[in-house]
Amino acid sequence: MKQEISAEIMTIGDELLYGQVIDTNSAWLGQELGKIGIRVKQITSISDNPDAICEALTQAMARAQVVLVTGGLGPTKDDLTKHTLTRYFKSELQLHQPSLEDVENIFRKYNRPMLEVNRQQAFLPACCTPVRNILGTAPGMLFQEQGTLVVSMPGVPFEMKRMMTDTVLPYLQQHFQLPQIIHKVVQTIGQGESFLAERIAAWEDNLPNNLKLAYLPHLAGVRLRLTGFSDGQHDLETQLQEQVHQLSILLPDNIFAYGEVTLEEAIGQLLKERNLTISTAESCTGGLVAHKLTSVPGSSAYFMGSVVAYSNEVKKAQLGVPAETLDKHGAVSEETVRAMAQGVRQRLHTHIGLATSGIAGPDGGTPEKPVGTIWIAYADAHQTIARQLSYNKTRQLNIEYTALQVLDLIRQSLRHPVDE
Amino acid sequence: MKQEISAEIMTIGDELLYGQVIDTNSAWLGQELGKIGIRVKQITSISDNPDAICEALTQAMARAQVVLVTGGLGPTKDDLTKHTLTRYFKSELQLHQPSLEDVENIFRKYNRPMLEVNRQQAFLPACCTPVRNILGTAPGMLFQEQGTLVVSMPGVPFEMKRMMTDTVLPYLQQHFQLPQIIHKVVQTIGQGESFLAERIAAWEDNLPNNLKLAYLPHLAGVRLRLTGFSDGQHDLETQLQEQVHQLSILLPDNIFAYGEVTLEEAIGQLLKERNLTISTAESCTGGLVAHKLTSVPGSSAYFMGSVVAYSNEVKKAQLGVPAETLDKHGAVSEETVRAMAQGVRQRLHTHIGLATSGIAGPDGGTPEKPVGTIWIAYADAHQTIARQLSYNKTRQLNIEYTALQVLDLIRQSLRHPVDE
Repeated sequence: MKQEISAEIMTIGDELLYGQVIDTNSAWLGQELGKIGIRVKQITSISDNPDAICEALTQAMARAQVVLVTGGLGPTKDDLTKHTLTRYFKSELQLHQPSLEDVENIFRKYNRPMLEVNRQQAFLPACCTPVRNILGTAPGMLFQEQGTLVVSMPGVPFEMKRMMTDTVLPYLQQHFQLPQIIHKVVQTIGQGESFLAERIAAWEDNLPNNLKLAYLPHLAGVRLRLTGFSDGQHDLETQLQEQVHQLSILLPDNIFAYGEVTLEEAIGQLLKERNLTISTAESCTGGLVAHKLTSVPGSSAYFMGSVVAYSNEVKKAQLGVPAETLDKHGAVSEETVRAMAQGVRQRLHTHIGLATSGIAGPDGGTPEKPVGTIWIAYADAHQTIARQLSYNKTRQLNIEYTALQVLDLIRQSLRHPVDE
Repeated sequence: MKQEISAEIMTIGDELLYGQVIDTNSAWLGQELGKIGIRVKQITSISDNPDAICEALTQAMARAQVVLVTGGLGPTKDDLTKHTLTRYFKSELQLHQPSLEDVENIFRKYNRPMLEVNRQQAFLPACCTPVRNILGTAPGMLFQEQGTLVVSMPGVPFEMKRMMTDTVLPYLQQHFQLPQIIHKVVQTIGQGESFLAERIAAWEDNLPNNLKLAYLPHLAGVRLRLTGFSDGQHDLETQLQEQVHQLSILLPDNIFAYGEVTLEEAIGQLLKERNLTISTAESCTGGLVAHKLTSVPGSSAYFMGSVVAYSNEVKKAQLGVPAETLDKHGAVSEETVRAMAQGVRQRLHTHIGLATSGIAGPDGGTPEKPVGTIWIAYADAHQTIARQLSYNKTRQLNIEYTALQVLDLIRQSLRHPVDE
């Protein structure tokens, strides 16, 4: 039987306590530790204060085998973590030559003069194992005492993450007898957590004991994460692949990708594979659909452009929406959104045109068309599909959900090409 | 002399420890407590586990006069906070009729059947003062023991925030002799924290002892927050207004708003006041500038539309950029971005046109125009201003910074109207 290893996270910095900075490091650490089979039992955020650091550390070390500490390693006077840990572990600072070279390299790279305070950052407690920081001037430190590992890292997220990935996570995997763990992520859209859970309940109940399913809902859908713990009897990879295959049969319409892929990346992949180009005509989404599509590297291969048509004048002049359509049905109507989708694909010479028109709020609603009344459309050479949405959220969320829905409309349309 | 009151925050929920949810409640609570003069000393996130809850609570109560607890109040079996607190404070559950009525009202409002588990939510420990939750089914609870206040609230952010604002913050202000505190926020853009600090160093050093300045940098600039603590001798409001006035003289070009106002809201305000309309022609920002402008309620009064021109064909056909300009100077050039800004304002009949064109990366760079080479432009009837930017960040950040810079270009142009 493998060991059950538990960890605690300590984040140090007054800015966390005053709410000037949201602690995102802890959630990332919790996820990464979970992936290698280590469970986080407590997260503690404390001030840049030696007494508080020592008290929290003593308590954490009494509860966990691994304590990850972030923050308080900067060169300024209010960064006290290194000095506090040196005293806590009854050690003394000494120059660590490889760390000094790393610090010097950073200043050389940015062509800036190195200050004495930065040179001081290469002085580390004699009793620690230094952890290399190739992205910043504060090296990490690994301490071992009474069976507990304590790792101190900078609070700067990208420095801490690189250190974890390069050094700390591999070290933890080697140091402890951790169970083999493999994760498979399945990305879904179009149904909420509880409905999805109902549809796959029988499958989930029959999962082997060594496989666990997590529902991770977010704005754009629900990520399903299937985690396998090796039981020494089955080939874990094969076991997981078989279960993911069964899941794909149960949710044929909702799965848009496997692995860490966004909806806009999945759509970009579909468009590239089929050599299709796309354009958008946006009223209520105000450019957000275009922004999402173009946030994907290489999107210029399939995204040609967009007309954000907020005023009716722009809808007529730039998209060719007939004046009588606008007069008769209004800007927020099936007829207008269809004309917009068709208009943009014709004017911008793309295979596909998307359109949105709606009342995002908080103002602009009427009794017949209240705030949250939204129309979206998809047009290609063969068909135009329009759908009505209805939201009762904030302006920001109404816009965000509409953008996601129209992106999902492409995905669905490309899955089931209908020739008229 | 007023009391120094310190607080601790406890957030309860396995989802926080596994990193499935980022704890944003604590930062919000830290900010709100800071505004009324209460300092947060520690934040602890723990599992839905009675032993862990009791241990953390005992420790927090020993250190602080106020302990705010969020999470674990849901109706399901894994929500253990209420039962744990009832035992911890040696009390027992009893039906709280007003809370039951609130719960019933919520189900009536959404027209859903109320389950027995929801009725159970109106049973509260006899020793607590119930805290009303008008947005959800879990009432809050306020306990007093040995001079410490413990308040338990739901983890759902909007329910917790409403409870804090309506009940808990006013209660804390009344219960403790807190110093009078007033905050003034000054929004700046265009200079980093350390440069700003240098420019206002003399002023900051001469601030009266009862005023403190905080630098709160974020992507779009630096918020300066001046906090005044009443010393009983001066009128605090007058004192703060005088200092903000002095600051406005020191940073005439960088301040874009006073109070909690975003850059796009400030620009919207300027455009409305002057009865000006605006349109955007976006290449590398892919619609983000339009999205930001239209995220402001009421923006349809001044924002007419946008042409996202990713391909050169769209730049020519929809914006009238001459083919020879594109051939001779390329899409990423001063000449092209000027033609785009002028083109969009003419085609969309607006007073102002904005344009962006650049290489956001990670691909598409050349030795002459590496990734991060970006041009932005502002055009009105009298002038066209173009600027080159150069970033060395990720695609997302290159896009985001470009959008902010072009918004700032409007702000600067509207501050100093130049007639040619």
